[in-house]
Amino acid sequence: MNYPEKIIAAVENFRKIPGVGEKTAFRQILGLSKWRTEELVSFGQALKDLATLEYCIECGLFSEGELCDVCRRSERAAAGIICVVESLSDCLAVEKSGQFRGLYHVLGGVLNPLAGIGPEEIGIPRLVQRVQRLGIKTLILAINPSIEGDATSSYIRQELPDDVSAERIGFGMPMGGALEFLDSMTITKALENRKKI
Amino acid sequence: MNYPEKIIAAVENFRKIPGVGEKTAFRQILGLSKWRTEELVSFGQALKDLATLEYCIECGLFSEGELCDVCRRSERAAAGIICVVESLSDCLAVEKSGQFRGLYHVLGGVLNPLAGIGPEEIGIPRLVQRVQRLGIKTLILAINPSIEGDATSSYIRQELPDDVSAERIGFGMPMGGALEFLDSMTITKALENRKKI
Repeated sequence: MNYPEKIIAAVENFRKIPGVGEKTAFRQILGLSKWRTEELVSFGQALKDLATLEYCIECGLFSEGELCDVCRRSERAAAGIICVVESLSDCLAVEKSGQFRGLYHVLGGVLNPLAGIGPEEIGIPRLVQRVQRLGIKTLILAINPSIEGDATSSYIRQELPDDVSAERIGFGMPMGGALEFLDSMTITKALENRKKI
Repeated sequence: MNYPEKIIAAVENFRKIPGVGEKTAFRQILGLSKWRTEELVSFGQALKDLATLEYCIECGLFSEGELCDVCRRSERAAAGIICVVESLSDCLAVEKSGQFRGLYHVLGGVLNPLAGIGPEEIGIPRLVQRVQRLGIKTLILAINPSIEGDATSSYIRQELPDDVSAERIGFGMPMGGALEFLDSMTITKALENRKKI
């Protein structure tokens, strides 16, 4: 049996979403085919609109207009602190914790000389300028732990003026974790980063 | 932090897909926001196109034009057999097994008098006419096992001319299943439907 072109087109598009296989795509499309016309049109439009999503010229977060919602708030700039993250999703995760009230800076990647990704590609000079322009005193490097992430953190530290404090986020055992299931690297970090109580 | 309208609209649409929660919707949209403009436009169009999906006037499968790909093939009509299923997805599952070469009939539901779903609503009179018009000799009732499904099967049997054979699909232990994890109803059916080897 041959499927109609419309089904095939929809399946092919859905399959490009990470984590969606052919079976899931089919199931979702059969569900979608029962939606009302106006619902489908609005969904289609929402997807097309993603193509014109804007990004903050300051920090790289998504925005409506030149500046994002975070950069526009004076109380967040007043904190004098920037949290540097690899990706937009990392940024949203930090924001969701509700524990950080300063500004963000989305690098969009980490240093990877073998892949041709140097400081310019991930905008480190722009970050350093921003730190100086805004008179930032503290940088939280919330870059994921990996060889490239560590190198990126060290490089940023080195490029910053000496009077700016750069701090990596704490590494250790995750909440709700069980020692028996942790990898040795995490246990090593947890032992290193122990804290007197 | 407030999210841009475009993100919120996309998240709300994705969340309406069964099995997609807020977290998944966000992750998928962050991925989608990296797609090229033309890819997003084509995905959006594919969704809008689902609104104009056509259904076969004979069997209820999706189609391009009046008849679906199955009903258009003379060798499938020649088999003189119709497989009756509840939903489009059930139909695709049977077709995927590759074991059935006759025609289909999608009911779109089962009898449920309490919810006001009678024989007319799921098109049983239309099925009976079709059986007579095409000179069908055998009906496979591949309706899911449930009280309503059993009632629907019995009702269809009763409406058919006596010379038409109506057969329910076999119930029992699924392939790869383990007796210890099966429910009692399935074990009961498996014991009833045992076969001499």
